[in-house]
Amino acid sequence: MLRVCIIGGSGHYRYVLEGLGERVLLVGFAAGSDGEDIGKLAAAIAERKLDVRAFEDWQSMLDICQPDVVAVNCHFGDHACINIACLQRGLHVFSEKPVATTFEDLDAVRAAHRATDKCFSAMFGIRYKPWFLAAHAAVKAGEIGEVRLMQAQKSYKLGARPAFFADRDAYGGTIAWVGSHAIDWLRWISGERFESVFATQSARHNNHNGMLEVSAQCQFTMSNEVCASVSIDYLRPPTAPSHDDDRIRIVGAEGVLEVREKQVLLINGGASGARALPLPVERSIFAEFVDEILGANGGTNFFLPSAGDAFAATEASLKARQSADEYRLVEFR
Amino acid sequence: MLRVCIIGGSGHYRYVLEGLGERVLLVGFAAGSDGEDIGKLAAAIAERKLDVRAFEDWQSMLDICQPDVVAVNCHFGDHACINIACLQRGLHVFSEKPVATTFEDLDAVRAAHRATDKCFSAMFGIRYKPWFLAAHAAVKAGEIGEVRLMQAQKSYKLGARPAFFADRDAYGGTIAWVGSHAIDWLRWISGERFESVFATQSARHNNHNGMLEVSAQCQFTMSNEVCASVSIDYLRPPTAPSHDDDRIRIVGAEGVLEVREKQVLLINGGASGARALPLPVERSIFAEFVDEILGANGGTNFFLPSAGDAFAATEASLKARQSADEYRLVEFR
Repeated sequence: MLRVCIIGGSGHYRYVLEGLGERVLLVGFAAGSDGEDIGKLAAAIAERKLDVRAFEDWQSMLDICQPDVVAVNCHFGDHACINIACLQRGLHVFSEKPVATTFEDLDAVRAAHRATDKCFSAMFGIRYKPWFLAAHAAVKAGEIGEVRLMQAQKSYKLGARPAFFADRDAYGGTIAWVGSHAIDWLRWISGERFESVFATQSARHNNHNGMLEVSAQCQFTMSNEVCASVSIDYLRPPTAPSHDDDRIRIVGAEGVLEVREKQVLLINGGASGARALPLPVERSIFAEFVDEILGANGGTNFFLPSAGDAFAATEASLKARQSADEYRLVEFR
Repeated sequence: MLRVCIIGGSGHYRYVLEGLGERVLLVGFAAGSDGEDIGKLAAAIAERKLDVRAFEDWQSMLDICQPDVVAVNCHFGDHACINIACLQRGLHVFSEKPVATTFEDLDAVRAAHRATDKCFSAMFGIRYKPWFLAAHAAVKAGEIGEVRLMQAQKSYKLGARPAFFADRDAYGGTIAWVGSHAIDWLRWISGERFESVFATQSARHNNHNGMLEVSAQCQFTMSNEVCASVSIDYLRPPTAPSHDDDRIRIVGAEGVLEVREKQVLLINGGASGARALPLPVERSIFAEFVDEILGANGGTNFFLPSAGDAFAATEASLKARQSADEYRLVEFR
């Protein structure tokens, strides 16, 4: 049985809690950042009646618990140093995204991963929603032909955010935190490479959350002259029927596919008008990470973000943020 | 009664045919460009049983007919020189968009307009669709608070296009022809100024239409840190239920409004969930242009694109095209 520790309670630790089972035992949890509030994580563990020890300090936890796997989701600016430390300890690492918030840190995570044979993935869990699984499958099956243009959207309610969201160093920016999901979709679904990005962002109307950007857009140029836009906002009204309004519209040479309101709508030559595709069941990203570690499914996990995917989506997010910060086109080399 | 001539049959001459009435008499029509096919215009005139003379040459037509108003919609690269000639003859000009396809031509049209007191407007007729009228009214009424972010979409079926669409000089580019509608909405609805644009475009999969771009996206940064994206494609499948899929999503500090599938959906604090706004009746852009000429409605026509609007949307379209052509950020000064 694999032993897992959770470091931090600021991200999607629920992926781990929902992915526990006969193959994985949660053995410890601790904050990952100075002053990090992990009360919600502790409550979620208690709610599930899991008998798991809380630690004051994540390094001591790792020394004592000797886990095989860590899930890292502290203040986003601290992901990288903990990812590196855990990879250097020979642990499998399931990191919240972005896996680093600076280019230097990202290079260091990449280097730490290259130096080990352990598994590394990131919490791009929206891939596993039935509507994104169905969209991905339809594009890979050729339902819209060659992808030519994509428009992705992330829209969230702002609500009450932890204090560290107001601090760019701790938070990393909205393009990296919210936008990276959509940036990952672009690459995952189209299979194209990023060539350049121009992005813009604003912290106006952020309800006194310091530097927190609440509106942003990124224009990517990808390989094969594919263009892709990402629109990001925290301005979804409190009265809206759901927390998020995640979408993607993918225009191919032979059809158009759209994910919207938990549906996948397809128009192509196969039928007249738009039809809603049947949806598969939701899958567990953490369960697939465990598959990857155990070499289950022949060691290939089609939906799991590879380490390369995690690094590429993080790099693209940081380049988009750089573009917005510096108000210039940023190219990928 | 105002006398109107139509020059060219390559654009939205129907706005004029549908806007004729007691105040306006159509007195002549002619091609505006070398080799222009005006067969469809002639057929539309015959279908309406209008007794109107066809001319071989638009200059002779103007000499003979002595109209008060001209509608110009020939090959797009020729709009500017005819607009200029007509303004210099002291005529009111209702021009197809883009009103010019080069910066030099645009400057010359502006100068010709400055030198006259005649009316000038452009065929940004999608403003007059009930859903765009309703969206504009809701934003101006403050339903979503201050505009922060916009995503506009133009998607058309390619179908069979006239041969001149394949020639960049005659056609002017897809960002200018198709995109300029959406670019006009951004300014019209938000009231913000354009500050910069980065755009990208591709002619791949254009079904042997020469240089015709069939996918493009523009990222505008506007005043007050407003961001706005425009997505353009000619890849709507032939089996789709409508020719176009025009949309705009406008995110404000206090609500989100969306035009999609001939509906206007609003989410704000006023009610739970999204509600569809009631739609006004469609209006006639050419009838409002006639109002403007005649000083009807006190001389103010709220929806009619002013000459300034027409020039600004054209300039922004040309700058976006320049950005895509030159692969660089283009600023507005």
